[in-house]
Amino acid sequence: MHAAWWLGRLFLRLSRSAGSARLTQGPGHRGLSSHRRDPELSSFVARTNTCGELRSSHLGQEVTLCGWIQYRRQNMFLVLRDFHGLVQVVIPQDESAEAVKKILCDAPVESVVQVCGTVISRPPGQENPKMPTGEIEIKVKKAEILNSCKRLPFEIKDFVKKTEAIRLQYRYLDLRSFQMQHNLRVRSQMVMKMREYLCNLHGFVDIETPTLFKRTPGGAKEFVVPSREPGKFYSLPQSPQQFKQLLMVGGLDRYFQVARCYRDEGSRPDRQPEFTQIDIEMSFVDQIGIQSLIEGLLQYSWPTDKDPVVVPFPSMTFAEAIASYGTDKPDTRFGMKIVDISDVFRNTKIEFLQEALSKPQGSVKAINIPKGIKYLKRKDIESIRKFATDHFNQEVLPVFLKANRNWNSPVAKIIVEEQSQGLSRLMETQEEDVVLLTAGEHNTACSLLGKLRLECADLLEARGVVIRDPALFSFLWVVDFPLFLPKEEEPGKLEAAHHPFTAPHPRDLHLLYTEPEKVRSQHYDLVLNGSEIGGGSIRIHNAELQRYILATLLKEDVKLLSHLLQALDYGAPPHGGIALGLDRLICLVTGASSIRDVIAFPKSFRGHDLMSNAPDSVPPEELKPYYIQVSWPTDSEAAKISLNHPHNPEK
Amino acid sequence: MHAAWWLGRLFLRLSRSAGSARLTQGPGHRGLSSHRRDPELSSFVARTNTCGELRSSHLGQEVTLCGWIQYRRQNMFLVLRDFHGLVQVVIPQDESAEAVKKILCDAPVESVVQVCGTVISRPPGQENPKMPTGEIEIKVKKAEILNSCKRLPFEIKDFVKKTEAIRLQYRYLDLRSFQMQHNLRVRSQMVMKMREYLCNLHGFVDIETPTLFKRTPGGAKEFVVPSREPGKFYSLPQSPQQFKQLLMVGGLDRYFQVARCYRDEGSRPDRQPEFTQIDIEMSFVDQIGIQSLIEGLLQYSWPTDKDPVVVPFPSMTFAEAIASYGTDKPDTRFGMKIVDISDVFRNTKIEFLQEALSKPQGSVKAINIPKGIKYLKRKDIESIRKFATDHFNQEVLPVFLKANRNWNSPVAKIIVEEQSQGLSRLMETQEEDVVLLTAGEHNTACSLLGKLRLECADLLEARGVVIRDPALFSFLWVVDFPLFLPKEEEPGKLEAAHHPFTAPHPRDLHLLYTEPEKVRSQHYDLVLNGSEIGGGSIRIHNAELQRYILATLLKEDVKLLSHLLQALDYGAPPHGGIALGLDRLICLVTGASSIRDVIAFPKSFRGHDLMSNAPDSVPPEELKPYYIQVSWPTDSEAAKISLNHPHNPEK
Repeated sequence: MHAAWWLGRLFLRLSRSAGSARLTQGPGHRGLSSHRRDPELSSFVARTNTCGELRSSHLGQEVTLCGWIQYRRQNMFLVLRDFHGLVQVVIPQDESAEAVKKILCDAPVESVVQVCGTVISRPPGQENPKMPTGEIEIKVKKAEILNSCKRLPFEIKDFVKKTEAIRLQYRYLDLRSFQMQHNLRVRSQMVMKMREYLCNLHGFVDIETPTLFKRTPGGAKEFVVPSREPGKFYSLPQSPQQFKQLLMVGGLDRYFQVARCYRDEGSRPDRQPEFTQIDIEMSFVDQIGIQSLIEGLLQYSWPTDKDPVVVPFPSMTFAEAIASYGTDKPDTRFGMKIVDISDVFRNTKIEFLQEALSKPQGSVKAINIPKGIKYLKRKDIESIRKFATDHFNQEVLPVFLKANRNWNSPVAKIIVEEQSQGLSRLMETQEEDVVLLTAGEHNTACSLLGKLRLECADLLEARGVVIRDPALFSFLWVVDFPLFLPKEEEPGKLEAAHHPFTAPHPRDLHLLYTEPEKVRSQHYDLVLNGSEIGGGSIRIHNAELQRYILATLLKEDVKLLSHLLQALDYGAPPHGGIALGLDRLICLVTGASSIRDVIAFPKSFRGHDLMSNAPDSVPPEELKPYYIQVSWPTDSEAAKISLNHPHNPEK
Repeated sequence: MHAAWWLGRLFLRLSRSAGSARLTQGPGHRGLSSHRRDPELSSFVARTNTCGELRSSHLGQEVTLCGWIQYRRQNMFLVLRDFHGLVQVVIPQDESAEAVKKILCDAPVESVVQVCGTVISRPPGQENPKMPTGEIEIKVKKAEILNSCKRLPFEIKDFVKKTEAIRLQYRYLDLRSFQMQHNLRVRSQMVMKMREYLCNLHGFVDIETPTLFKRTPGGAKEFVVPSREPGKFYSLPQSPQQFKQLLMVGGLDRYFQVARCYRDEGSRPDRQPEFTQIDIEMSFVDQIGIQSLIEGLLQYSWPTDKDPVVVPFPSMTFAEAIASYGTDKPDTRFGMKIVDISDVFRNTKIEFLQEALSKPQGSVKAINIPKGIKYLKRKDIESIRKFATDHFNQEVLPVFLKANRNWNSPVAKIIVEEQSQGLSRLMETQEEDVVLLTAGEHNTACSLLGKLRLECADLLEARGVVIRDPALFSFLWVVDFPLFLPKEEEPGKLEAAHHPFTAPHPRDLHLLYTEPEKVRSQHYDLVLNGSEIGGGSIRIHNAELQRYILATLLKEDVKLLSHLLQALDYGAPPHGGIALGLDRLICLVTGASSIRDVIAFPKSFRGHDLMSNAPDSVPPEELKPYYIQVSWPTDSEAAKISLNHPHNPEK
């Protein structure tokens, strides 16, 4: 009855928003969301009711139901399923109903049937309180097999474990699972409420922008689409960035779009070649304006079965996020923050700390693992230290304040009492805590400890300690990012930290011409439970400034962006915006383990559609109109490719 | 902010339950727009109000406005524009406001300014009743230039005529025009109401389907997208057809999507390589169910400033549409229907009529042009006759019942009195009408007269006769299409009239195995004012029937569709759906002259983005990861191409 329980919850959740308002409504009234009437789920179709909606209040009603045979018990009962839930159908046993009985007993499980009958009470004692429809059953008068089901590749039951590859291959069967039904419905409803908020409450205009566009400078991750002109290609854009800015220039003031975007990154475990973002842009707005808009948006669209979203969201500078969490997307559901303990060791005799502190940006940092002595094993500490050496070339030293266990803790023994007290005070340690300490350059030390913080949280949770409340949604704005970063390949040169249209922080404008690497930007990220779910910025609306940044600082070919630069010259309003990653957001809201579980037909992590077998070969003559041909790799190249893309079921 | 809208909603709710009379609305009630609170257009931004919203009721209010300088009068007044409208700003003339004056007088037209000031009455006699804000003006205290505007390529005034090429090149400026602002906002609002109807009222689930898919059999019009595997390509689908059927198999029961679709047809004047359809699919539904759904959808979403949509829409069989209008998308806003007058001429002596009637499917047909004698000129009749000969190899004969003009009407003279009377009776002619008569095979004759009917309507309207009421929206269902058509290239073979998943008409099922060409389908088209705005069908849900049609009748390679066939085997419910062409629909609703006027960033008819210059060249090294290279055409081929794609401004 696990299934029944699930469906019950699903529909409780999804229809809760209707609530008490139904009492005050006249017929045909179509209300604002809070007044909202339940949707009519059986309008225009053959059924009179859904399987899942029937209750004692329907007793005596003649109903027609359509659904799938979930299972059959001893040729006496049949459980019929539709998207709304399960209902028990009594298979008639009297001779006059022989034909109906035969139909219902012969049909294989997962066949589609239509039954007409009466809603009756279950006999006393046979009610099933775990099943939302558990008080009633259907006395059948007529039955018809609408379609028979062949032998299935797997059972449509949530408890039957399937590999993801088989689920993707038979996606149309996997979609029948309660979890996928739930996820896709939550997604649809949340997006609908976002639209209500944007369109109906705040006058945003939903505008579609092209996906057949032109390659942007440095657009190496953009899919190309050959055109019927030799050598000319469209490009599938990574976001509607340019278009939304041009809409602002066009006076379309408050734009939004649930935008399909494309990114060709080859194989990435939790990315999709096409994804969806809630794309927003406004004129005459500042950072606070966008943030308030988004806070209201999430509050309004948040599922009603969860705790309401509390606004405003806390905000943190990029520098603070790095210093305290070692990452620009801190998981603020729990503490264990990074603490700078340099001052404690300012006069230390410990050589490697001395050395670290003598360098510019040198520091000693630590995190406190609560009850680490109790829950962390020796091998955990060892693997933590190995990780630090392997990935960061850093030493990590565990400090046990209550050194009652025989672990390898070289520093603990040589820390003098004064330092130990200082440490204890700064780290707010309790008796059984373990402090992980490292020394080195600020960013490296923070980055390492940030990773260890998450790693230790996982470890503690695996041992049964609740570190992150699963019901908690912890939103955070991260602001004041740097505008530029040193180019990865050529550290002497700069690249845009986000994109070249991001406006500099007004207080740092003067640095743009002297020390551009120090300029902060008006970019902001929205972080939820340690995942980046959105990002945006106030944009540059001044053509001259945009030209200076593109041409002089970033050395980009401005010709490729001449249309945008020109647009800024013709009275572009100040503007800014944001994009929320919908797949990731819904994944977090539903608690799905992968974004593939909130997408109806996702690609495998190699970018394959395992159901239809896309991408597929195309005969050369069909490529001719596009003036392209395949450059087949040589044998040795091909061998290398197949090494990178080995044949395996999760292709 | 939030408190404010909650209060607003509370107030709405209270006032609604009190004023119960407003709630008792019939089924034709188009929703809440009248109850709905206006969206807040100035939330989150620097302005307090929009330019267009200010009225006498705002007198005395301190306001901050942001907008573009529409024009300036004698350095005394400035008209400020935003998306909402225009407002007059008084430029202060006193010395103390010298700075403000300078700012407002120096800024070029179309610069973006922010002004703070007080709403005051215009002096008596200076009100402008043509301007919604014409009773008030703004007394400015502060002004700031937010961005200056360089010399424009054209003026942002609707009356300034521009070529479409220049409009597309500077689309961001063209978007500032009243007409484009209006069209895009109507589009956004109509789609929003469609979503409310589908999601909130009828429980549809908005599900996104992939656009990186696999080439479908015969998908010559599908763009290809190279993948990072040699020789493997994705394809941009022409519609989510397969996915929506698979969603039904997956139990997702009521699906809709505002779906981006792609069609590569090379150059077509009023088509776009990417377009949008309202895509719908339902399980357990029949033709009437889908039609009622769509009628309700259009009624609900129809703009409130137009006459309400009357439902149900009339319905007509394909055969009837051809017989009466010579097309499967009849413009039913006006009569002038095709009439079969074969019986009148059954015993004629007129040789060519005799000959036509002696053949199978031979017939004599006519249309009646009301007041044709008055409005059609001799050269019109001549060009009509030439058109018939050139394009249909058919004779068209004008018959003047009141033969008082010296036109070339050979038949009129030889039609005997009895025939003349019969003709007059069947055609319901009036004195000054002209009958256009043709003889020949049924379909050809109808098709020709269908074209002439539209042509003559245009001609009459050009001469000032109102044939089609511009306020009239005439919807029509066309049903009972043939399931198959003879293949154009091989008339002995069949092809699907729409697509191979269309279910046959149940009454014609028996013919499928004997005379498949006679089978009607369960396809339906929705026609509005002579344009097809939608089409759909009940689909085949039986795997065996689908296999038979694909493999035996259509000779398709079923391997390419094996996933779909397999899905039908696993308990596929009966299902059907429809897709509405959104661009075309909005074009008709707004009265736009081209779908390009209801799309923010359309392509030219050659598929170019004239603003950004897409498609564009891509360096060979960026094609390498996709294992493709350009097959440059030879010189002679290139010459041929440039002949087909001559360089002209409307590229």
